[in-house]
Amino acid sequence: MATLEKTIANIEPLRLDPDGSIQRRLDSLTKPPGSLGELEAIAKRIASIKKILRPKLERKLIFTMAADHGVAGEGVSAYPREVTAQMVANFLAGGAAINVLARHVGADVVVVDCGVAAELPDHPSLVKAKVAPGTANIAAGPAMTRAQAVRSIEAGIRAFDGCARGQADVVGVGDMGIGNTTPSAAIASVLTGLAPEKVTGRGTGVEGAAYEKKIDVVRRALRVNRPSPDDPVDILAKVGGFEIGGIAGVCLAGAAAGVPVVVDGFISTAGAAIAAGLAPEAKGYLFASHVSVEIGHAALLGRLGLAPIFRLGMRLGEGTGAALAIGVMDAAVKILDQMATFGEAGVSEKDP
Amino acid sequence: MATLEKTIANIEPLRLDPDGSIQRRLDSLTKPPGSLGELEAIAKRIASIKKILRPKLERKLIFTMAADHGVAGEGVSAYPREVTAQMVANFLAGGAAINVLARHVGADVVVVDCGVAAELPDHPSLVKAKVAPGTANIAAGPAMTRAQAVRSIEAGIRAFDGCARGQADVVGVGDMGIGNTTPSAAIASVLTGLAPEKVTGRGTGVEGAAYEKKIDVVRRALRVNRPSPDDPVDILAKVGGFEIGGIAGVCLAGAAAGVPVVVDGFISTAGAAIAAGLAPEAKGYLFASHVSVEIGHAALLGRLGLAPIFRLGMRLGEGTGAALAIGVMDAAVKILDQMATFGEAGVSEKDP
Repeated sequence: MATLEKTIANIEPLRLDPDGSIQRRLDSLTKPPGSLGELEAIAKRIASIKKILRPKLERKLIFTMAADHGVAGEGVSAYPREVTAQMVANFLAGGAAINVLARHVGADVVVVDCGVAAELPDHPSLVKAKVAPGTANIAAGPAMTRAQAVRSIEAGIRAFDGCARGQADVVGVGDMGIGNTTPSAAIASVLTGLAPEKVTGRGTGVEGAAYEKKIDVVRRALRVNRPSPDDPVDILAKVGGFEIGGIAGVCLAGAAAGVPVVVDGFISTAGAAIAAGLAPEAKGYLFASHVSVEIGHAALLGRLGLAPIFRLGMRLGEGTGAALAIGVMDAAVKILDQMATFGEAGVSEKDP
Repeated sequence: MATLEKTIANIEPLRLDPDGSIQRRLDSLTKPPGSLGELEAIAKRIASIKKILRPKLERKLIFTMAADHGVAGEGVSAYPREVTAQMVANFLAGGAAINVLARHVGADVVVVDCGVAAELPDHPSLVKAKVAPGTANIAAGPAMTRAQAVRSIEAGIRAFDGCARGQADVVGVGDMGIGNTTPSAAIASVLTGLAPEKVTGRGTGVEGAAYEKKIDVVRRALRVNRPSPDDPVDILAKVGGFEIGGIAGVCLAGAAAGVPVVVDGFISTAGAAIAAGLAPEAKGYLFASHVSVEIGHAALLGRLGLAPIFRLGMRLGEGTGAALAIGVMDAAVKILDQMATFGEAGVSEKDP
């Protein structure tokens, strides 16, 4: 467990604007104090993470963590399981939503195979870190062994350290894995204490009896596995997924390296919650991009204490929400860096 | 009134995806149907406005409409009146928040002097369309004559036609004018029927007694002027402002030219509401960027039937919210244009 433990040990508690210099700069800019709302709060946190007054988010990277799920065999998704590998090919060819939105904000996309149930071709944008070809069915037993859970987290840490450390100013993290809203709902239920029907959503679009079945699968997964709410690795092993572990690893490694990590939707938030369970100080480095229509997402964000940047009714995953949020965060730091001060612009300040 | 009447007559009712081809394309792309939420709705409306399946928003332009207000003499703002002209200079020098955010999304900024109480220098990004050097004090009588109100709207129409028609794929519209949340609150009260204290916010940051005074000024403006709720030009003349008329003009001209117009915050929404009063069909071409912390904004958006794209606690104006929203709208149309279809990518479709 050396890699995981070392990473956790390297996470410093975030000190938000310790000497007040960031707030002073924000208030010196030609606008009423606080009038850019959340943009100012975002800029302040990023500057605090980077420990510089005028940070830049020039090098942007989005990790799309991919894996398959044994529970897909229960019919919890509207799509067949082979879509995971097909979508990875689509990501590598540049045709998926995440590619379009990442290009839009100037971000690169790296796909990490944490456990896709297919052999994937070599590609410069693909990190091969397969723990196993898909998890076992959580409705019948644990998703993976405890050792595999640790390996999946370490796969995310290694992906970050190999592709992002020293090379990215901000990273986003998203998911691909047919069936993965089901383990995410199970994780959300364990961590929030809410009943399965309160945190299980429609994923890619299951309706009617299939939706009832999905809720029942989450119930069975929790009953069969009894994950320990205080042991994040146990939760991940029993009802999680390899890409969810990988997401947790990216969150931990980003926090350890002092790089803001932008969390995508419901599945990514489940991964971030595992990370925060292992290292509560990591939360200072995490940004929630959006709140999706998945019904468990808002509760899980609340449990993490993260406020989403926007609410656009998205539910795609891949890192799509993270990409849009990175655009907003980039705008926020440009405010700190590029705006004129009252003095520079010769604009009168607020009446006393 | 020829220019205004001709513009209104040229506004076609928007037909949303009349043959279903836009929805078919959205559903052919490699994502669960509807999973990009509001992005899909935005893309569909823009494609309907442009009457093409894969529109592009490459040429982006933001109009910052500027004017002064006699009511500023009542102490309704935290800033002195000369800040309007000083901020125009800041816009033209590129140092204001709108410049930073417009550059971020690849938009140009054009400032329109609708009625600043100062002589402004010539500048390639400044349109000189001064109706008068500031309005009269609405707490004591009408802001302007009816003829001036029409001229202010036509100033916006001419600015659009001169700078944007055939030259911009999307425009944003914002405001600069010390004191202008006060006339906007008066307009909001007339149009929503809500009492002044329900629609009067803190603007640039007035507190305590000054805030109570501001609410009283709105009450007096309505009592003294008695604007007719069914006559938008009368409302603008009695309790409006020159830049608010200009904003209405940009909205009307954009609708007439088939160009999406992105409305910034509270003041811009007051202008958009004047436009929608004159030509209800214009609403099909308007996009609400955000809902600000100004307490009357949400009600005015509701009256217009416009749903804001985001909520970031902003209250700066200038077009800053419109700039960020244009970034999201650009992302939305890129989804329509750039994503691979299931067929192109070889991805299995949803189980039947």
